Amino acid sequence: MKKIINDPKRVVDESVAGFALAHADLVTVATDPIHVVRADAPVQGKVGIVSGGGSGHEPLHAGYVGHGMLDAAVPGAVFTSPTPDPILNATKAVDGGKGVLHIVKNYTGDVLNFETAADLAAADGIEVRAVVTNDDVAVKDSLYTAGRRGVAGTVLVEKIAGAAAERGDSLDQVAEIAERVNANARSMGMALTPCTVPHAGEPSFTLAEDEVEIGIGIHGEPGRERIKIEPADSLVDRLITPVIEDLPFSSGDRVLLFVNGMGGTPQVELYLAYRRAAEVLEERGIRIERSLVGNYITSLEMQGFSITLLKLDDEMIELWDAPVHTAALRWGR
Amino acid sequence: MKKIINDPKRVVDESVAGFALAHADLVTVATDPIHVVRADAPVQGKVGIVSGGGSGHEPLHAGYVGHGMLDAAVPGAVFTSPTPDPILNATKAVDGGKGVLHIVKNYTGDVLNFETAADLAAADGIEVRAVVTNDDVAVKDSLYTAGRRGVAGTVLVEKIAGAAAERGDSLDQVAEIAERVNANARSMGMALTPCTVPHAGEPSFTLAEDEVEIGIGIHGEPGRERIKIEPADSLVDRLITPVIEDLPFSSGDRVLLFVNGMGGTPQVELYLAYRRAAEVLEERGIRIERSLVGNYITSLEMQGFSITLLKLDDEMIELWDAPVHTAALRWGR
Repeated sequence: MKKIINDPKRVVDESVAGFALAHADLVTVATDPIHVVRADAPVQGKVGIVSGGGSGHEPLHAGYVGHGMLDAAVPGAVFTSPTPDPILNATKAVDGGKGVLHIVKNYTGDVLNFETAADLAAADGIEVRAVVTNDDVAVKDSLYTAGRRGVAGTVLVEKIAGAAAERGDSLDQVAEIAERVNANARSMGMALTPCTVPHAGEPSFTLAEDEVEIGIGIHGEPGRERIKIEPADSLVDRLITPVIEDLPFSSGDRVLLFVNGMGGTPQVELYLAYRRAAEVLEERGIRIERSLVGNYITSLEMQGFSITLLKLDDEMIELWDAPVHTAALRWGR
Repeated sequence: MKKIINDPKRVVDESVAGFALAHADLVTVATDPIHVVRADAPVQGKVGIVSGGGSGHEPLHAGYVGHGMLDAAVPGAVFTSPTPDPILNATKAVDGGKGVLHIVKNYTGDVLNFETAADLAAADGIEVRAVVTNDDVAVKDSLYTAGRRGVAGTVLVEKIAGAAAERGDSLDQVAEIAERVNANARSMGMALTPCTVPHAGEPSFTLAEDEVEIGIGIHGEPGRERIKIEPADSLVDRLITPVIEDLPFSSGDRVLLFVNGMGGTPQVELYLAYRRAAEVLEERGIRIERSLVGNYITSLEMQGFSITLLKLDDEMIELWDAPVHTAALRWGR
């Protein structure tokens, strides 16, 4: 295992410490157990938003803490759910009197631990709602989930719900729009290479020199099928077709097209994939209104990409365009 | 070779086409030969800024075209200098009557082809100045250069010179500040893995399972030494010590600390490296005033990172903070 790390057991602690130093204007970091909180939290009279999950998917979630997005992020160990304690602490830290929304990717551990934390917060008098994201069309149940997995659509939920909270929406309203974004988002990914969890020390799976995995999960969990590598355009078609047909997205729909890198894929390949995805959407009469291309939810150094489509309405567009100031997503301020 | 590509010969064309589709609000792309131009070019009464070089370093340079940074980028084939033709076309396209600055990384092909384009532009009555970046302290001469290589410091030159041009500085003034940033920036990088140029089909060099290359170039060209892999903190020390001692940076200096990923390195490792770099600077009494962490100048899927320090003055800080709106760097609008 070749990595830029010191002690495999201290990877998350040391990385979050670096993140806190680099972004001291945006966040404060509480340790033992670790959680990342917006520097000006709690923002009085604003719904607080907390997300979290296993580390290794950076910039998700700490990279999205700041004005217009998350109030706190709770990173677990690599690919391991955080325990209820730091989730509870984060929930308390961001409660500005208007309630707190938990945005949770649909993995059994995350769902359970966020539920426990929400119960404990409720006992402390904090109103908590949870939205569970499950945008991955690749598989129904999987290694770590009952039902579909929450993947790249989560980034879009966090941005749009974050903007709704920032403009002063109530907890019900913020939860409603988060649910609406999740309900209108679909994703599917693929991998060229595996990744290595530091404390495991070995790749989480193996792929032959000419093999790729279609429908991969963000922890390297199995997808739909292993195939021989194909030209990029065919790979894009294999991802975008089930995405389109699942919702389904139809002619005349306005969408946000999100091409996400898994961490180790060069940008030149992501834009090459974007080109084909845009072509497919044009052929089907689906209108790209907004785009996002880059490494926004990753699987350590895994090479591969995912495609997410979000069916937009006017309110979602307005909230997408609203100012955001986080380490990983910033515009308008 | 496993890559998300179609035809190796069409990688740059297809990727730039995707970039143009995703960022149609920011850029227009001229093809045959290819160059990427700010959508509102030429901006009358503003110095135009053109950069370029071989592809494979994305987001450099096309990702920096837009308000407050570059007016045009000229991508060559992967790791291959663009020819004078598209550089000349880009220079003409961004000339707003106040002259054009070329920002050129110090590689023999780039320097030569930008010079030829500048001569041709001058013959057409466009005043052109060139600033050649050479911030890499690793090696004096190298495979593709006489003198030091231009690496990550180039991103800082482009941002700060771009802001100077945007506020209305003259060509002399913009060139002066670009020179000043280059003169005060020092960088050094390392690699864990090689990268594969698509049209070559094989990794550009090999490293044993436990070996890393210190002082690597952004095309995988040799650095100072190959060593057995060490803990991250030792690797950071091996990069930052020669960087600090070269300028030298001294106690009381204010700096921008830039930890750059080579393309395939997970963010968790970059922030972990940042933590140690910040620690070293604090020990030496050097004050971090601004930070940048992420994949800003890459070598395809290479795993590794570089550290850049820029000694800041008040004007550089003001220009660094000025609004920028490009695909890869955006704040303040």
